[in-house]
Amino acid sequence: MSYNVAQKLIKDHLVKGEMKPGAEIGLKIDQTLTQDATGTMVMLELEAMGIEQAKTEASAQYVDHNLIQEDSKNPDDHLFLESAAKRFGLHFSRPGNGVSHPVHMQRLAAPGKTLLGSDSHTCANGCMGMLAIGAGGIDVAMAIAGEPFYVKMPKIWGVKVTGEFPDWVSAKDAILEMLKRHGVKGGVNHIFEYYGPGLKNLTAMDRHVIANMGAELGATGTVFPSDEETKRFLKLQGREEDWIELKADDGAEYDVHDELNLSELEPMIAKPSSPGNVVPVKEIAGESIYQSYIGSSANPGFRDFAIASKIVEGRHIADGVSFDLNPTSRQMLIDLSQQGHIANFLQAGARLHQAGCNGCIGMGQAPATGRNSLRTTPRNFPGRSGTKEDSVFLCSPETAAISALHGKITDPRDAGFSYPEVQELDQPTIDTQLLDVPLPYEEAKDVELVKGPNVASIPEMDELPNDMELPVLLKMGDDISTDEILAGGARVLPYRSNLPEISKFTFEIVDDTYYDRAMDVRDDGGHVVVGGTNYGQGSSREHAALAPRFLGLKVAIVKDFARIHWQNLANFGVLPLTFVNESDWEELEQGDVLVFKGLRDKIHDGYEVEAEIKGKDKTIKLEHALSKRQIEIMQMGGLINWVKNRLEK
Amino acid sequence: MSYNVAQKLIKDHLVKGEMKPGAEIGLKIDQTLTQDATGTMVMLELEAMGIEQAKTEASAQYVDHNLIQEDSKNPDDHLFLESAAKRFGLHFSRPGNGVSHPVHMQRLAAPGKTLLGSDSHTCANGCMGMLAIGAGGIDVAMAIAGEPFYVKMPKIWGVKVTGEFPDWVSAKDAILEMLKRHGVKGGVNHIFEYYGPGLKNLTAMDRHVIANMGAELGATGTVFPSDEETKRFLKLQGREEDWIELKADDGAEYDVHDELNLSELEPMIAKPSSPGNVVPVKEIAGESIYQSYIGSSANPGFRDFAIASKIVEGRHIADGVSFDLNPTSRQMLIDLSQQGHIANFLQAGARLHQAGCNGCIGMGQAPATGRNSLRTTPRNFPGRSGTKEDSVFLCSPETAAISALHGKITDPRDAGFSYPEVQELDQPTIDTQLLDVPLPYEEAKDVELVKGPNVASIPEMDELPNDMELPVLLKMGDDISTDEILAGGARVLPYRSNLPEISKFTFEIVDDTYYDRAMDVRDDGGHVVVGGTNYGQGSSREHAALAPRFLGLKVAIVKDFARIHWQNLANFGVLPLTFVNESDWEELEQGDVLVFKGLRDKIHDGYEVEAEIKGKDKTIKLEHALSKRQIEIMQMGGLINWVKNRLEK
Repeated sequence: MSYNVAQKLIKDHLVKGEMKPGAEIGLKIDQTLTQDATGTMVMLELEAMGIEQAKTEASAQYVDHNLIQEDSKNPDDHLFLESAAKRFGLHFSRPGNGVSHPVHMQRLAAPGKTLLGSDSHTCANGCMGMLAIGAGGIDVAMAIAGEPFYVKMPKIWGVKVTGEFPDWVSAKDAILEMLKRHGVKGGVNHIFEYYGPGLKNLTAMDRHVIANMGAELGATGTVFPSDEETKRFLKLQGREEDWIELKADDGAEYDVHDELNLSELEPMIAKPSSPGNVVPVKEIAGESIYQSYIGSSANPGFRDFAIASKIVEGRHIADGVSFDLNPTSRQMLIDLSQQGHIANFLQAGARLHQAGCNGCIGMGQAPATGRNSLRTTPRNFPGRSGTKEDSVFLCSPETAAISALHGKITDPRDAGFSYPEVQELDQPTIDTQLLDVPLPYEEAKDVELVKGPNVASIPEMDELPNDMELPVLLKMGDDISTDEILAGGARVLPYRSNLPEISKFTFEIVDDTYYDRAMDVRDDGGHVVVGGTNYGQGSSREHAALAPRFLGLKVAIVKDFARIHWQNLANFGVLPLTFVNESDWEELEQGDVLVFKGLRDKIHDGYEVEAEIKGKDKTIKLEHALSKRQIEIMQMGGLINWVKNRLEK
Repeated sequence: MSYNVAQKLIKDHLVKGEMKPGAEIGLKIDQTLTQDATGTMVMLELEAMGIEQAKTEASAQYVDHNLIQEDSKNPDDHLFLESAAKRFGLHFSRPGNGVSHPVHMQRLAAPGKTLLGSDSHTCANGCMGMLAIGAGGIDVAMAIAGEPFYVKMPKIWGVKVTGEFPDWVSAKDAILEMLKRHGVKGGVNHIFEYYGPGLKNLTAMDRHVIANMGAELGATGTVFPSDEETKRFLKLQGREEDWIELKADDGAEYDVHDELNLSELEPMIAKPSSPGNVVPVKEIAGESIYQSYIGSSANPGFRDFAIASKIVEGRHIADGVSFDLNPTSRQMLIDLSQQGHIANFLQAGARLHQAGCNGCIGMGQAPATGRNSLRTTPRNFPGRSGTKEDSVFLCSPETAAISALHGKITDPRDAGFSYPEVQELDQPTIDTQLLDVPLPYEEAKDVELVKGPNVASIPEMDELPNDMELPVLLKMGDDISTDEILAGGARVLPYRSNLPEISKFTFEIVDDTYYDRAMDVRDDGGHVVVGGTNYGQGSSREHAALAPRFLGLKVAIVKDFARIHWQNLANFGVLPLTFVNESDWEELEQGDVLVFKGLRDKIHDGYEVEAEIKGKDKTIKLEHALSKRQIEIMQMGGLINWVKNRLEK
């Protein structure tokens, strides 16, 4: 049988299930990636599980999100992550070393391997012939512990690439074209696989740009073959030995067929406020801009900066434009500086920021209210820039640089001068000064975790009891999002490594008395919440399950769940139940007390589940959709306990 | 009669008073400097006063403090400041252009002139033969409006400089030696004037370092003569025509005599948590460090960075040290990049931050809890770094760089290699790309102020009424600081351009019901607060007077006032009264209503002031210490009204 690249990668790592689209499969994970915003909780989960050492071939903890350090919370988290990386045998990329995705690509990515990362743009490393998938924190913790990663077998979406970029057009325009065609949900449950004669015209970093924003298509992943270009890239990074060839078999097929002729592309731009809102730049040329921002994992390469530098060289940005330069890796910043590009940018009027994610995730460089900001970043969801009423456009470095010179959105083909030549460096700097390698286990095992005042271990969690009497603390309607369960933003995020503190914000938007009421009954057995349809939609943040669990949430009863939140509840030992008769939602009131009898045994033995409303002479029928594996996890009180238990045996 | 340089500068600008130490003098102000953290309120005051155009020779608005832009508040403030600079005829230094003090020195400072700035380190420009003084925002607003600046005639403290620096010793060690000798209050009501044969061994930027931290000595200012070195500096900046010679007359005398032999200096360091806590580096060598931080207006010169770059060139910083590089001006950053210093730093393991104040004022790069941070910044007061339990040491770039290599505090003389040579550049970059010049009045007068949602005009303020019945909303004890009246910090600071919003934090630490209670009686005439001794001590922030005033504070009755807060209250039209009999403090209770009759007339005509406690048959005698000018201001409801009134006439 003939396989495409994605299928080969899956086949080589399949430990459970069948490769039928839609069926759950378990994959062996070779590498993991965590960043600081999600990584502190992953490390606390490893601690809580009692993990001794990473079982992966390579796991790396990056610090790239929270670099501002307005107070001690960020730097304390950095020290904690450093100690955890030492303790658990991870690579540690220090603050200032750069954004996880390009650094991982430069230093650790290897064709033929799987990579699981607690960052949605983990898919970027699919550019290297890897199966690279973003996931929730505890999934990555499980992978570090050596457990398989469970995912629905995706369909493979083949994109035949032909032609080569015209002048002033680059990889960002290619992925924006894909987003124009398919929108932000087009790729759900698919892996995009790029192949064809045009690949020879895409450098490894071009492929990174395209693979990175596969996340914006909603895809499970993006895969490129490993070819001579992959080899060239690895050789320049001093890692030729990590190269293997990986290409689709002759006669390999795809579930979906698509074609991308690079020669026919033109400069594209995503308008506010969705990466799927794409039009040709020429359609909106002339709109004035306030900010032009170059950087992020969506345009991380030397070329991406060098081309912008050559465009602004000897010229001046327009009055009143903030031209923000956000280098993506330290080793590349050295090259940019030595090659004169940094001086070019500065002379043109740029602001140079530290290497990291920065404004891409709303940590700095927020635009003024309502002013147009052009960015080479991957996302422009409302408010992501940090500014509530923002107006962010996504484009290529070429479009961003030309527009900065003109002070308005400009099709780079109207530059009025010829397209500058930019060569990749023959000998790029390799610098591992801020990338620590794992300690040998003999040293690692004695490392103590360094916990500043804001880093709190995850408390022990009880098993699910058999008999419970639980008050309904909240009764909610439809479409409650994880933002309503636990908000994001600069006010809440700094507590991401402190479950007791972050839990104080739980359901604050829905009912700000919830926290106090939950704490009142926490030691008496906990509580129940009731919701409508699409409960837990939105962001995948696991704190939205973990925090209510910490406050004593035992059972969530709703009409139906959003998929990821349902999984998160199950992972953390909150029993997710749905009404057998949706009309029973009407019967339940805030303040009711529900009596569960033999619940634990019933879900185990496959019996129907029910709850009696105390004092109302009414019993409500409920059901769950847990797999056998999940029931076991649930009974033990969640994944952390389940792993701990296995390790003790 | 023979005059020293300071006396000449004062004499040439004296518009009121006599040059007797301790007597109030009024000085004509030639130049002003405002930064963004204080400048937004200054601009709002100019608006409220109805000022048409700056009357100074040069006034510059810098944006250097709040560059993080986590949300729209900072960038909205930047746009407001830009529009205000245009409207009022000021230079505007854009975000990313650098720290006010070195930029002002490079682009605008001129010997023989006076400079008033709403930043305590304004004194740095005394290095250029200027009289440069830091002051409160409304004082600077008044200066922009053409009014004199009133200050006590200081004593002149002559420091005869001899010798030259040994290897590994530089200007920071000189000013740290001065702080070791005289402490943080030693210079109060003095101007330090440096003179003597050693000056030829101090570059203009060395003098900047010394003049800058005159603020830490508590001095009114620091003055250097304008000599051949001043001329050389101005010539390199393309401004030779701004040079005049300015030196002390033969036989000039000083009120205090001091001597500084540069040859005898050694590396010095200020230990936590005061700039006056100075010891030789060798005394504490060996203490481990977590952070080494180079930058700020206390070491802003090309040399200060280049020497550190040469020290770390080809070497690596110690494991676990965060080596933070904070460039001070954009035009110098271009030179540092072109000369290879930035690449040197990066290869050694540095984190490069944007040009601005950054960590020096707690906006980023905060250290981890309790970890030692070495900084070339001017201040290490507890918590100033942003971290509550910080441990910050102040030192030279030499000491910071060597210590970064060793991971512990190291006397640079123990480097183990010879002192690198650093030459000043023959042709430094001059770059005014981000420094806008004032608009001509004909254009400026039509510019509209750009106010984002967080920028609120200062509301109109009533005149002081003659007859009032005012409740005592707070009765406080001794030593209430301006921090207790209105806190600083990242939570409150973003509202500095929004009086209605920032006023919600007023007295929050003392009594968090104050705001609501004040708002309840605001329209019924306002209220009174009562305090003990040393009321209003601490930071000079004018919001601590302006915010309670906005909430209806009419009279503050205390045992005695701290000087600056007393002045701020008077400036903003809150009547500051003290008990004639301190024991009457006992008589007053929170909730009492005080009846004032003919108050306005009484203070005008010099009669005794008294307040009857309603329903208690008790009258309390009170007094004020306002000058005639201040009484006039008070009657009109504050300086803003007073200026407005004059302009209308």
